[in-house]
Amino acid sequence: MARTTGTKRAILDAALQLAAERGISGTTMDDVAERAGVAKGSLYYNFSSKDQLFEGLMLEGMSALTEALREARAGAQGEAAIEALVTTLLGRIKANTPLARVIAGDIFRTDRPWQETSFAFRHEALAEFAAAIDGAGRERSVPAGQDPGASVTWSTQLMAASVFGATLMAGLEWLVSDPDRPQADVVDAVLATFGRSREPAVVQAKTPR
Amino acid sequence: MARTTGTKRAILDAALQLAAERGISGTTMDDVAERAGVAKGSLYYNFSSKDQLFEGLMLEGMSALTEALREARAGAQGEAAIEALVTTLLGRIKANTPLARVIAGDIFRTDRPWQETSFAFRHEALAEFAAAIDGAGRERSVPAGQDPGASVTWSTQLMAASVFGATLMAGLEWLVSDPDRPQADVVDAVLATFGRSREPAVVQAKTPR
Repeated sequence: MARTTGTKRAILDAALQLAAERGISGTTMDDVAERAGVAKGSLYYNFSSKDQLFEGLMLEGMSALTEALREARAGAQGEAAIEALVTTLLGRIKANTPLARVIAGDIFRTDRPWQETSFAFRHEALAEFAAAIDGAGRERSVPAGQDPGASVTWSTQLMAASVFGATLMAGLEWLVSDPDRPQADVVDAVLATFGRSREPAVVQAKTPR
Repeated sequence: MARTTGTKRAILDAALQLAAERGISGTTMDDVAERAGVAKGSLYYNFSSKDQLFEGLMLEGMSALTEALREARAGAQGEAAIEALVTTLLGRIKANTPLARVIAGDIFRTDRPWQETSFAFRHEALAEFAAAIDGAGRERSVPAGQDPGASVTWSTQLMAASVFGATLMAGLEWLVSDPDRPQADVVDAVLATFGRSREPAVVQAKTPR
């Protein structure tokens, strides 16, 4: 997705700040125009409605996340793929906590105009985790490019939701309780929950970070 | 907590339905009065403001949850305590999905008047998971009655958040994707994520359900 700039970017950023502070339902177009420092005409020129604005914001965030997860999994095999996904998701939560909060609060809402698209993205994100779990169990990964969710059992789908939920909740807890702790400590704690530990090679590669 | 009945109960139930459908911010006191079938005077007689109403709703739900978790952990030792907590949390999500959705969406909001109380409840709920994790690792549990969070390390706190988040997300995914599946299958999938399996004795005890 091309990076959005200028007025459109300012509007999306203001909408995100406000949604993180007071929820999507609690945010009005007037609030967004004021926070972004743009005229209402300019706001409506860029986004014809509040629904369209927040749909754009959610989709931008969710597609960036699924793309990052896809890349992370494609670059790793077996057990390391799960670690790569956990590390990537934690990194995104840290890099954009307001967005993580807004997505976390929206992910199981059933009243949003963007519900179907949001559902599709959740499915895609979970499919990456499912493929990594499948690959770790069978010591092989689903090739990049192939639909990783194609042959996933319901039980693997639930395990994928578990790994995703564990990482999301641990990440948000990290940033609420002690955000100065290094990300590697959070990765360790999440992997320890799964009875796993970081791959030595990956620890090595990440030391300079 | 004494069970709320009559008009107050009807108001709380209507508020929950509406919040699950359109969010707390998207729900007005007028909506609640209409859905509950009570006059506005009666609504305001029971709850002086929308904040007071939703604070009451959240606290009722969260205190029932932490009490159920406390009981579940107190009745089990070591590994079985984790299974008991996972089973209890999934049972509550199944029994009151709208409430689970509303709490899940609210848990990391930082703008609610009830934020401090909500934070305290989250801490209490996580402390039960932390005590179970500690107990499983050290093959002993923190005695019931003793503050289970007193000596918990940060890493155990994050693992507790992981187990809680895994169970919550798997539970919501269960109810979105295939709610007719038996709860035991979901418990199995969550425990498998942690590299654990159900205790044979517990499987036995639950078969007739």
